[in-house]
Amino acid sequence: MNNSPIILDGNCVAAEIKERLAPRVAKLGANGIVPCLATILVGDDPASATYVRMKGNACKRLGLRSIRIDLPSATTTEELIAAIRELNRDPAVHGILLQHPVPGHIDERAAFDAIAMDKDVDGVTTQGFAQTAFGFAAFPSCTPAAIMAILAYYKLPVAGKHAVVIGRSPILGKPVSAMLLNQDATVTTCHSKTEGLPSFVRSADIVVAAVGKPNFVRGDWIKPGAVVLDAGYNPGNVGDVDYEACLPQASAITPVPAGVGPVTIAMLMKHTVDAAEKASGTN
Amino acid sequence: MNNSPIILDGNCVAAEIKERLAPRVAKLGANGIVPCLATILVGDDPASATYVRMKGNACKRLGLRSIRIDLPSATTTEELIAAIRELNRDPAVHGILLQHPVPGHIDERAAFDAIAMDKDVDGVTTQGFAQTAFGFAAFPSCTPAAIMAILAYYKLPVAGKHAVVIGRSPILGKPVSAMLLNQDATVTTCHSKTEGLPSFVRSADIVVAAVGKPNFVRGDWIKPGAVVLDAGYNPGNVGDVDYEACLPQASAITPVPAGVGPVTIAMLMKHTVDAAEKASGTN
Repeated sequence: MNNSPIILDGNCVAAEIKERLAPRVAKLGANGIVPCLATILVGDDPASATYVRMKGNACKRLGLRSIRIDLPSATTTEELIAAIRELNRDPAVHGILLQHPVPGHIDERAAFDAIAMDKDVDGVTTQGFAQTAFGFAAFPSCTPAAIMAILAYYKLPVAGKHAVVIGRSPILGKPVSAMLLNQDATVTTCHSKTEGLPSFVRSADIVVAAVGKPNFVRGDWIKPGAVVLDAGYNPGNVGDVDYEACLPQASAITPVPAGVGPVTIAMLMKHTVDAAEKASGTN
Repeated sequence: MNNSPIILDGNCVAAEIKERLAPRVAKLGANGIVPCLATILVGDDPASATYVRMKGNACKRLGLRSIRIDLPSATTTEELIAAIRELNRDPAVHGILLQHPVPGHIDERAAFDAIAMDKDVDGVTTQGFAQTAFGFAAFPSCTPAAIMAILAYYKLPVAGKHAVVIGRSPILGKPVSAMLLNQDATVTTCHSKTEGLPSFVRSADIVVAAVGKPNFVRGDWIKPGAVVLDAGYNPGNVGDVDYEACLPQASAITPVPAGVGPVTIAMLMKHTVDAAEKASGTN
């Protein structure tokens, strides 16, 4: 149907974001400030450990400092919140990332909401979400922000388009729906209780898959010419979209890996630099 | 098409809500507490003055106290916020309602966000919106809450249905979209930049009109058997839905007046009583 779909190259988008950060990091450094991201990992989920390590490495390459707090699986909500509060108080820490998901016995919402607004670089607080929904967030969640950055980089129109988001989580489906809406898309949010999901997806100009199920979105669900953004990342480097099947239908599509993932990390770096500039009054 | 659409009678729904409040108000009274709603009206918009008067009358009929603060059109954001803070500090005031809209020179968002969370009985704060979106708000906005109450009263199914919301304001379109989503509807949020609005509405099992344009939703936009909820209230007692034209298509529809409006006021009373109980530890 489409002879040449655009492969939305997350590495290119991430490279541009990071390139723009370099002089800002240098300027902060000249003022004796090194932007610092603290990541908290509770438990020993190997995928989460990998993400946290990738974020630490990204900091290092950009000249940011990173602190890694590892807490045992048995950590209580209170202990986790105490650790977050300590980071809130530390003037050398500019951004705090609590790696999702935390073990089931922890009140994740309470933990997220313990993060100080000016250090909530992944937009996970309740207040941060609302600011995103109202269009004035300092730090929208990094994956939704990455999706919007990819659309912007490739100048793919959003206003007036029908966007179908599959997923309604507080840090992905809900904020990306809100961000698309604020850019004047007509937005349908689908989820596990949606009846007739394929027909909703078939009506979409823009599809965002945020389901967490490998190869969930099928080729025959994609309207010819649609833009497909895959926010999934399942074991074995597999996205939520059946890439090979969707590629011939789409006008543009993110691969997995090297699609949304690297841009998410670049956004986290950007937000950490933003936070460091704000904290120091250097911008 | 439908021989007997249900007329969703807001007065009945409101009466039931208020009936349940009566013993709670009596119990508070026995403890020396009279729930109190403070309404703030800035400027002299006659429609707003009418709304504020209706809310005051509803308080009186239920045995609630109401305080009315009238501020001149020339009030600054700072002066308005100072008035709100005074009400925040007053232990005799349980709920605060800032009548929307305020004059254009005022930062309405800043004013809304000055309302203390435990007195934000109309769910207008940024934090209150996010709590609504995440499904744990103490006080969701009254009109969205009224729409959900009407659906519940008439036992109209929401889960798995396609709900189309026309409007995306922070106190109506966005929160009602979120509340429908949290009750497992698949939700499409439409607005002034939506292309092909009639065809979106035609695909809806549940239509919520929150546009602010008289008779905007036409009869031939309604899928036979759809549920139509009209949150509009325009000059001359006219809703956003062309009621006469939509009635024969719908399986259930709210009239204007006597549809969503009275339930909105009942919700405001309920939230004020809720707030009084919480403040006094009486529940």
